[in-house]
Amino acid sequence: MNSLTKLRNKNKEGKFVCVGLDTDFQKLPSHIQLLKNPVYEFNKQIINATITNAAAYKINFAFYEKDGPEGMEILKRTIELIPSDILIIGDAKRGDIGNTSEMYAKTIFEYYKCDASTLHPYMGGDSIKPFLRYDEKLNFILALTSNPGAADFEKLELKDGSPLFLKVIEKVNEWNVLSNCGIVFGATNINELKKSIPMFNNLPVLLPGVGAQGGSIEEVIRAFKEHNRYDLLINMSRGIIYKSNNIDFAEAASAELVKMNEIVKNIIDE
Amino acid sequence: MNSLTKLRNKNKEGKFVCVGLDTDFQKLPSHIQLLKNPVYEFNKQIINATITNAAAYKINFAFYEKDGPEGMEILKRTIELIPSDILIIGDAKRGDIGNTSEMYAKTIFEYYKCDASTLHPYMGGDSIKPFLRYDEKLNFILALTSNPGAADFEKLELKDGSPLFLKVIEKVNEWNVLSNCGIVFGATNINELKKSIPMFNNLPVLLPGVGAQGGSIEEVIRAFKEHNRYDLLINMSRGIIYKSNNIDFAEAASAELVKMNEIVKNIIDE
Repeated sequence: MNSLTKLRNKNKEGKFVCVGLDTDFQKLPSHIQLLKNPVYEFNKQIINATITNAAAYKINFAFYEKDGPEGMEILKRTIELIPSDILIIGDAKRGDIGNTSEMYAKTIFEYYKCDASTLHPYMGGDSIKPFLRYDEKLNFILALTSNPGAADFEKLELKDGSPLFLKVIEKVNEWNVLSNCGIVFGATNINELKKSIPMFNNLPVLLPGVGAQGGSIEEVIRAFKEHNRYDLLINMSRGIIYKSNNIDFAEAASAELVKMNEIVKNIIDE
Repeated sequence: MNSLTKLRNKNKEGKFVCVGLDTDFQKLPSHIQLLKNPVYEFNKQIINATITNAAAYKINFAFYEKDGPEGMEILKRTIELIPSDILIIGDAKRGDIGNTSEMYAKTIFEYYKCDASTLHPYMGGDSIKPFLRYDEKLNFILALTSNPGAADFEKLELKDGSPLFLKVIEKVNEWNVLSNCGIVFGATNINELKKSIPMFNNLPVLLPGVGAQGGSIEEVIRAFKEHNRYDLLINMSRGIIYKSNNIDFAEAASAELVKMNEIVKNIIDE
């Protein structure tokens, strides 16, 4: 099943929330910290508890890379826990010249077998191209991110009056020949989101920034509903996986995800 | 010794060429391919042969990541081969929201013990900030890159008439409070380089794009000489490490590096 189909199947089932596995040893419940492979055991229990309600999983490479080769082994084993009908986003935010991006694409799609990547647009078309050769995959290219620093460059006004992030979206539409591109759009930028949806065309959208960062899931869903257009994933990491810091962490994560799905369902059914 | 001092010491010795370890198994001499740890053995011989003449080493993470945890083990062991007076650039081109960039900074500076990073500016100040807490390190932020895609966004004209890459350089100057910032400027953009040097101020400059990508080491050195301003590293990867594909590959790499250093010396002494 190709990656876009996986995403759409989940959206059809009313699942829009992507569970972000930003697993940090320091933040794990103390009973998990005592285990032999605490990060892996935590991920396993989170995945088991959320698998029937998650729209996708996003694995944040940074949290595994910081432990060197051992961390990457845990990342690999975590990915193997996720069934093949659920989209796995390798959130590594890569981007380099062609021959180097080719290696990064191999890493994310071939070695770790992710279904999707996240990419920096700054270096332009040829830095993205090696990822686009994988026609079954999805590539979420950063347009407008959820952090305060988005104001430094992403929102800068170009000579033609449009902000830089809209120029990125325009280019991503051009690159989407094989229907394997998407964009990242921070849910904290709700006004920009409302105005920009018509420019998204067929691009699926990954929306971080809900929860710990302050974005509202209700507002995001309402904005897309207004255009009767979905193909979207709302990412929640800390808000789900660290909902409880106790023995019940996995049930608490599951309950939070169910609650989010109900909020979404109620808005769509309104 | 802090990272900027390492760079300056080498520049004072007339060394400006950074050796890029973009080591690809497919491109190794056949007698090396037969060894147990071919990438490591190749790097070891290249480092041994170039150590007295290299200004720095740049290790391209992508080429190691593609082999998973084993590749990262080789990356780590390669870094351990380089003596502590030579700058090691962890060329990973990272950039994410604060809590994630913090993990990437830990990866590059604490786990792999690199002296310097390369970073994407797109997500703005708070995506760079966790790297800037390491006051002994250097962070080369992408300004204008050496690839054709640089025209897609980096060279776009902003409302105030300046290209995006100059706005990035302006911001990097602001971020340089602890003298631990630098920029990446592609040697393929020689006209832009000549015009931009006065805006670099105290920022050290990493210049890729010489050799395989078409940039000229002579033109780069002349441009900086005109402003009597160095603090620079000209990166060469394929042009040095794959100079010969035979048994003499290490000597050929060394000879090429010596030749480059002489070209530079002749221009500076003119």
